Amino acid sequence: MTTSTIGDFLLRRLREAGVHQLFGVPGDFNLEFMQQLEDGGVLTWVGTCNELNAAYAADGYARINGIAGLVVTNGVGALSAINGVAGSNSEHVPVVVVCGSLPLKAVDQRLLMHHTPADGSQNTFYRAYEQATAAQARITPQNAVAEIDRLITTAWQLKRPVYLELPSDISYLDIAVPDEPLRLTLPASDPERLRTAAAAIAARLSAAHAPAVILDLDADRFGVLGEVTELAEKLKLPIATMVSSKAVVDETSPLSAGIYGGAGSLPETKKVVEDSDCLLTIGYRRVDLTTGCFSDAIPASAIHLNAYSADVDGVNYQAVTLKDLLRAVIDVAEPVAGRQFGRPAPLPVATNTAPSEGKLTQGEYWAAIQDFVREGDVLIAEDGTANGGAWGLTLPPACTFVTQAVWGSIGYSVGSTLGTLLAAPHRRHLLFLGDGSFQLTAQEISTMLRHDLKPIIFLVNNGGYTIERTILGKTARYNDVANWDYARLPHVLHPGTTARTFTVSTIEEFRKALTAPHDAMIFIEAIMDRFDTPDLLRAAGLGSAELDFGPRGPQHRPGARI
Amino acid sequence: MTTSTIGDFLLRRLREAGVHQLFGVPGDFNLEFMQQLEDGGVLTWVGTCNELNAAYAADGYARINGIAGLVVTNGVGALSAINGVAGSNSEHVPVVVVCGSLPLKAVDQRLLMHHTPADGSQNTFYRAYEQATAAQARITPQNAVAEIDRLITTAWQLKRPVYLELPSDISYLDIAVPDEPLRLTLPASDPERLRTAAAAIAARLSAAHAPAVILDLDADRFGVLGEVTELAEKLKLPIATMVSSKAVVDETSPLSAGIYGGAGSLPETKKVVEDSDCLLTIGYRRVDLTTGCFSDAIPASAIHLNAYSADVDGVNYQAVTLKDLLRAVIDVAEPVAGRQFGRPAPLPVATNTAPSEGKLTQGEYWAAIQDFVREGDVLIAEDGTANGGAWGLTLPPACTFVTQAVWGSIGYSVGSTLGTLLAAPHRRHLLFLGDGSFQLTAQEISTMLRHDLKPIIFLVNNGGYTIERTILGKTARYNDVANWDYARLPHVLHPGTTARTFTVSTIEEFRKALTAPHDAMIFIEAIMDRFDTPDLLRAAGLGSAELDFGPRGPQHRPGARI
Repeated sequence: MTTSTIGDFLLRRLREAGVHQLFGVPGDFNLEFMQQLEDGGVLTWVGTCNELNAAYAADGYARINGIAGLVVTNGVGALSAINGVAGSNSEHVPVVVVCGSLPLKAVDQRLLMHHTPADGSQNTFYRAYEQATAAQARITPQNAVAEIDRLITTAWQLKRPVYLELPSDISYLDIAVPDEPLRLTLPASDPERLRTAAAAIAARLSAAHAPAVILDLDADRFGVLGEVTELAEKLKLPIATMVSSKAVVDETSPLSAGIYGGAGSLPETKKVVEDSDCLLTIGYRRVDLTTGCFSDAIPASAIHLNAYSADVDGVNYQAVTLKDLLRAVIDVAEPVAGRQFGRPAPLPVATNTAPSEGKLTQGEYWAAIQDFVREGDVLIAEDGTANGGAWGLTLPPACTFVTQAVWGSIGYSVGSTLGTLLAAPHRRHLLFLGDGSFQLTAQEISTMLRHDLKPIIFLVNNGGYTIERTILGKTARYNDVANWDYARLPHVLHPGTTARTFTVSTIEEFRKALTAPHDAMIFIEAIMDRFDTPDLLRAAGLGSAELDFGPRGPQHRPGARI
Repeated sequence: MTTSTIGDFLLRRLREAGVHQLFGVPGDFNLEFMQQLEDGGVLTWVGTCNELNAAYAADGYARINGIAGLVVTNGVGALSAINGVAGSNSEHVPVVVVCGSLPLKAVDQRLLMHHTPADGSQNTFYRAYEQATAAQARITPQNAVAEIDRLITTAWQLKRPVYLELPSDISYLDIAVPDEPLRLTLPASDPERLRTAAAAIAARLSAAHAPAVILDLDADRFGVLGEVTELAEKLKLPIATMVSSKAVVDETSPLSAGIYGGAGSLPETKKVVEDSDCLLTIGYRRVDLTTGCFSDAIPASAIHLNAYSADVDGVNYQAVTLKDLLRAVIDVAEPVAGRQFGRPAPLPVATNTAPSEGKLTQGEYWAAIQDFVREGDVLIAEDGTANGGAWGLTLPPACTFVTQAVWGSIGYSVGSTLGTLLAAPHRRHLLFLGDGSFQLTAQEISTMLRHDLKPIIFLVNNGGYTIERTILGKTARYNDVANWDYARLPHVLHPGTTARTFTVSTIEEFRKALTAPHDAMIFIEAIMDRFDTPDLLRAAGLGSAELDFGPRGPQHRPGARI
């Protein structure tokens, strides 16, 4: 044991867990921790314009780095960030939220403090965070070591955010702390359960005529893509992904079976999944937007593998971790020499469905982007025409595709891109979004420029929330947004920037902009028709309207939707 | 009884309660309600750039209009807005939050939906909102009439926000609704309790040598300023306000005794409050930032009047409403002819404490603003140097002063100003804020310009969070923010705007900018030294550091604070 202040111990543990940068906004209840961070010099502070953007940045950072940290102040900061944290919770991204909280003196003496309801209630924000995180703790000198380690470990093991309140008057107090570094390890599997489950799965696979795998986002989050690929190669299993897991396996691999999303999927992909007599699902969640509004048809015989359990032929296995189980199946399964299955043609990029009249169309736009993406790119696609179009790209190997297919919080992509940029500074980061989404979080461009980061930003200016127009209100005013001079914004947010900014309205102009040297941020505003949308999005809009509004909803009026 | 759709009934009730405009962001779970709003044409939709800004706008609107409505979508929208709503809760501002929520079909069938944790849990956001609102309900066809009326009435009676979930698949269903309009009335007081309390208070007042009144924000929120003034005039009572209630009574009135905030108050104000032998407090809350870190000394004999109860000489009275009780005291108290008390001199405007060297100083800045404000202005002052300076102004009659002295969420003022502008379009609105705060919510300037609103915006560009520098981290990097070309921003957010924008760095330039014709938005960026701050803020910084970090905190290091 050695002696450390509580704040320094927390910083040390975050570093040991793999956090290199902390995102957030200072406030009076976290300033003392900010000072420890600045004095310590081990972690880097990335101040953002606001807390929601910080939460999005932490999410993006964690998706590539494996874990992230977020620092906010009591109440105002915590609640400003909670939507981003709830997104991490929904999409299984581990973020350690450190909330610089009321001094314990104020808690003990029940003082009414600013940044609180000031009505005598306590634990208000803690309870709000119970709704958005996997675990919570208020740190005290007595519990600090145990709770800090529990929370960081929980975040890492469950791939979910956790909420840690650090009272402002104890961060400089000395406690005894262990010398050993934090060891993040998965719980060991029960050997018998593991053996039995693996044998049952291997037997099913070996007896099957058309085995296959379908991956939801947990396959990525729990780090089993290597095992999945190894198993698939050994047994010649086609691998389907979902909109929530696009590109987690190489889309150009012969094993790639395309994106499955229920009724609208390509025929070859549907066949691979729905006709499989031994489908391994990994982390599969039936969510409306990832299953074509529940039009999926997973065979009843499917084997379901989850992070820490499995369902095989009606038997539920506990104490089996996903990685161990896949490894055990790989070890016992017999290799298969040559199995054939129909590979889908590359997804069609978005087609031109609006009258063009020389205007840049969604079809042209995504075809040009298809030519532009290259191996190793990080693509961050906002909900809307952005991910509706980007899902149609066939990505080269080693790309990362970041989107919120489940949580779907518009504005997410801007903050998230700040995080991915910092987590993978040597890769190319392509941010795709629309004007409506951009307006929620646009200021975070300033933080990218402040740190000399160089994303390539593809912004569609089509005058509003096109994703909503596909659902309801095709021409309604509530779906319009104000027009900004988007391409000038980087110059305002970072005077003197060398960012290369373009406003394009034809395919020729767009393709020309794509040839700009990538020596600074590239920001391309593309003017498009407000009714032009990738086909995928239009189809989804009708499904959403039916599910959301029911048979009496207004979606059936003429002209209600794109 | 008549027939109405649920959505139309909700719109009708909001209108009957006095809501004319609804703020928010569309999302797929509220689009059907958006459509009802647009079709109905009775309420006006004010779409904002994001939900937090909408919540701030609703708050600002309600402070002037009496009540406001906010529309968000399930999960992502609700949680994005929750910090603003929690601010309304803390500062006693009635806002009806309408959350377009999951279809009841999805709830009943336990479908996993986007914008949720997608883990089988339900009511997640409802529980989060329990922490931020006075009442909550999920509307169903069965409960719609009762719950809509209960929630709106609760918001109005308690001056607190409420949270109403409107499932997306029932908004178009028909229900039977009452013909009578909603009548918002205070609960009647118990006549005997009222008589007894009023008699006890009047007896104390009549026996006192130095009676006085001190108002916290509830005096404004519960609409009793007329009664307070009438009582004060009848009995010649000096009226002290607080930083949370600045300017709720005319600061130039002979009855005005200045702002009381504990130890740092002016001597005349301290004497009026602390030496009173019959102090009536109205809604008084001992909050750190409104009481000089609990350095207030309210006499033990004080009479405490709250919205729906009173404490007089150790007796707690229930079933007495504040308005009724003040009226009853006015009626039974004997008038007093001439009572003298020491009136404080006008508060000194912020003084120049940083070396000037030709730079514009806080002292000069606020002196010029003192000359600029006029009767009837609405002043919105952000936490930081803005309200630290603006508290020092002596305001002409009929001004409204909007700030978050308790909740203290930076960025609030931009959204709030959108709300005050729409609630009082014929008044002049002066927004005071700093660069750090502006960056959280800057995009909402676009919505003001879109609606041709004409605030006068005073932005201090001093390179960071000066309020934090007064607490800790005088030169720390974590208190620095990126530099923007602030004065160009309105031109980017509304191309072609006629907004008059200025960047000034001397008092001469600033005073010249103040003479600009007010025919459009005026935006004045004032460059100031990063260590220059109103004296009031510097003093508060030390108190906060001691309270927040305790005796072992880093605030005692040389150069730790401004």
